[in-house]
Amino acid sequence: MTPRAMTAHDEAGIRACLDDWAEATRAKDIEGILAHYEPDIRSFDCHSQLQLQGVQAHREHLAACLPCIQGPMTFEIHDLQITAQDGVAVCHYLARCGATGPDGQEHCMWLRVTAGLRQTNGRWMIVHGHCSAPFDPESGKALLDLEPKHEDRASAA
Amino acid sequence: MTPRAMTAHDEAGIRACLDDWAEATRAKDIEGILAHYEPDIRSFDCHSQLQLQGVQAHREHLAACLPCIQGPMTFEIHDLQITAQDGVAVCHYLARCGATGPDGQEHCMWLRVTAGLRQTNGRWMIVHGHCSAPFDPESGKALLDLEPKHEDRASAA
Repeated sequence: MTPRAMTAHDEAGIRACLDDWAEATRAKDIEGILAHYEPDIRSFDCHSQLQLQGVQAHREHLAACLPCIQGPMTFEIHDLQITAQDGVAVCHYLARCGATGPDGQEHCMWLRVTAGLRQTNGRWMIVHGHCSAPFDPESGKALLDLEPKHEDRASAA
Repeated sequence: MTPRAMTAHDEAGIRACLDDWAEATRAKDIEGILAHYEPDIRSFDCHSQLQLQGVQAHREHLAACLPCIQGPMTFEIHDLQITAQDGVAVCHYLARCGATGPDGQEHCMWLRVTAGLRQTNGRWMIVHGHCSAPFDPESGKALLDLEPKHEDRASAA
């Protein structure tokens, strides 16, 4: 059997899942975020914990961290690339995220996001998430002030 | 068309790719590592840079960092989970990695690894890699001393 390439219909479904997930994140809507997750989801989030297994662990993690974000939240998907065939997709993008403080200033950083999706009953669902910042091996500090290089962004899909 | 589930043959090919990639990493064999990459690979590595696009950028990154690792290298795959169907696979695991110093002591940390694979001419190749450590939002430091929790490891595949 020859694998079927990603169709426009698949791509639309995958992008809708990622866009709705980002929208729920901006709204700090925990149940809206979790609605995109498969029950057996396993994630590697950018802070605090090595891994999260299952929806309930994700709920507790979000409940602990989303209230710490004060003010309107920014979460933008940039340079999305998708590799997909029948029912499984690997998606990766750069996320510009942060929040607007009481001073009206937007404080943002760039993170890297990978999402693994599986099609279940025709709907694309997230089965794996990985969000991170690189660290500086000299200082051990997370590098939260890096910007995408122009040449990388220009060559991205 | 109903998507075909991952066969034992697919799983063996995917595991062989990941095992050979880890073996090349332990050997600090740059061309051996790159032999598993698709030309359009994009990676998010755990340190120094936001992203790497294409094989040559990966070669330069490895040439800059692998010589910094003194002594025999440890790179073990733990708790691997795979979601795959026709020709695309999402793989994630915890990596115990580090090196044995001149004192004979092994200095290791746990990292999170995601690999997106695509089957090309029957061979599983890496099209996306993401390796990271979480950071502490208070100090901004990478958390390089976390250990997997027993309950997470027991529930992992």
